[in-house]
Amino acid sequence: MLPPTLSDDQSVPFDDRGLAYGDGLFETVLLRAGKPVLWRYHTARLAKGCHRLGIPLPCQQALDATWQGGPTAEFEVLKLILTRGSGGRGYAQPDQVTPHLLSRRTPFQPSVERWQKGVAVRLCDLQLARQPRLAGIKHLNRLENVLARQEWSDATIAEGVLADSEGLVVEATSMNVFWQRAGEVLTPQLDQCGVAGTLRAALLEHGAIALASLSLHQLANVERLWVANSVQGVWQVTKLFAADGSLLQSWPLSQPDPFQRLAHQLLGVT
Amino acid sequence: MLPPTLSDDQSVPFDDRGLAYGDGLFETVLLRAGKPVLWRYHTARLAKGCHRLGIPLPCQQALDATWQGGPTAEFEVLKLILTRGSGGRGYAQPDQVTPHLLSRRTPFQPSVERWQKGVAVRLCDLQLARQPRLAGIKHLNRLENVLARQEWSDATIAEGVLADSEGLVVEATSMNVFWQRAGEVLTPQLDQCGVAGTLRAALLEHGAIALASLSLHQLANVERLWVANSVQGVWQVTKLFAADGSLLQSWPLSQPDPFQRLAHQLLGVT
Repeated sequence: MLPPTLSDDQSVPFDDRGLAYGDGLFETVLLRAGKPVLWRYHTARLAKGCHRLGIPLPCQQALDATWQGGPTAEFEVLKLILTRGSGGRGYAQPDQVTPHLLSRRTPFQPSVERWQKGVAVRLCDLQLARQPRLAGIKHLNRLENVLARQEWSDATIAEGVLADSEGLVVEATSMNVFWQRAGEVLTPQLDQCGVAGTLRAALLEHGAIALASLSLHQLANVERLWVANSVQGVWQVTKLFAADGSLLQSWPLSQPDPFQRLAHQLLGVT
Repeated sequence: MLPPTLSDDQSVPFDDRGLAYGDGLFETVLLRAGKPVLWRYHTARLAKGCHRLGIPLPCQQALDATWQGGPTAEFEVLKLILTRGSGGRGYAQPDQVTPHLLSRRTPFQPSVERWQKGVAVRLCDLQLARQPRLAGIKHLNRLENVLARQEWSDATIAEGVLADSEGLVVEATSMNVFWQRAGEVLTPQLDQCGVAGTLRAALLEHGAIALASLSLHQLANVERLWVANSVQGVWQVTKLFAADGSLLQSWPLSQPDPFQRLAHQLLGVT
């Protein structure tokens, strides 16, 4: 494991392959009182991404240094970007790869209102392409998410749900999707596309959720629906709109919400 | 059209969306005696990419400024990177988008030997995902090309040919693919994936080539095969290897090569 180049000014040069090709990975981590939440899952996903892309994984000390020290707020978001580093023209990587590791902490306030009152979501027109070589990892090639997020500007719509080119539900633009069927909470496998979130990973490890397949047509008929990630926590979906703005389904806000309670326990935001 | 922010030090900050999400476009342009070759096609592709991604196109003056002035060599490569600029956390773009335009010129020497003697290419294992929303444009989400280029390190292999998930030939890792059937030169349509090269665009405009579909299985049986782009010119393929290294086909070097001659006239490298 090579020590990564730490960029003091938190910028990357013209020839950085993260900029040139999206050749790298990122993590978005909730810090609670200065300590990273689900850190083990974030570093595990980063390691998986490095293995998949063939990028040397920074040592644990370098990763820990991104959040250690400095003033702390109750909640912050730590964003890490790890790129393959500088390279010449062309897709072939240089003989000696020296990754660039960058990080930034910003104050953050989770939306308690969305935790308590739920959210409205919409379906996206954009269909995610199926690329198993890139599925699950949090790489820097995120134009599909950018294009999907451009589909709406109405602030009352909290998220957009994405299906793949086969019409199977994958994720929301920046969250994972969970639904309930026969009392069980389910989430897509993400072996063809999508980002496998760290909260999802923790919930899987705890046996709280199972993997399943769901077509976009079935989505409106699930017993309950949630979107969630490790920074925002769990939002119950109370309204589902089609891409054309028509209401497809509404669910009554169900309290208590054992799924949200468990997930928020894992995040320490109860 | 907004004036882009020109970065004097040719770096981008942490929050640049090109770095964060590959949210941008690039062009790689041959300069001959300081003048861009096929410049009209490069700016047209950039404009198409900006339209597709919703990024404001820099004014022509700003684009021209990337190659005007300075010392000139016989051949150089100009690389442009245009990103959506800085943005906050999350995929939603900021209310006010100010793109970052970066550029760099580097000396370049085309391989006359490959023009004259042809090249060996191989098939890649990686299959390109089909995403019509991103097909044809030269965006910054190029992890598929990076992974494909990792498949070989043998310097005698000049390029790797990529098919999509349906098994249809799309492109080479950094070049377009052309083949001859019944005397006609053909190239894939690139409406599902792949980068539509500027040399390819010029050849299409001149009526020198036509669009067609070719399965990977048919590739070894074409009359002639070429890989080409606007920087390297046209390389006749004389040997085609499978991903496992076995020889699939060899073609005798055919001279004269009217296709190469026309393409090189368009590039001014005759």
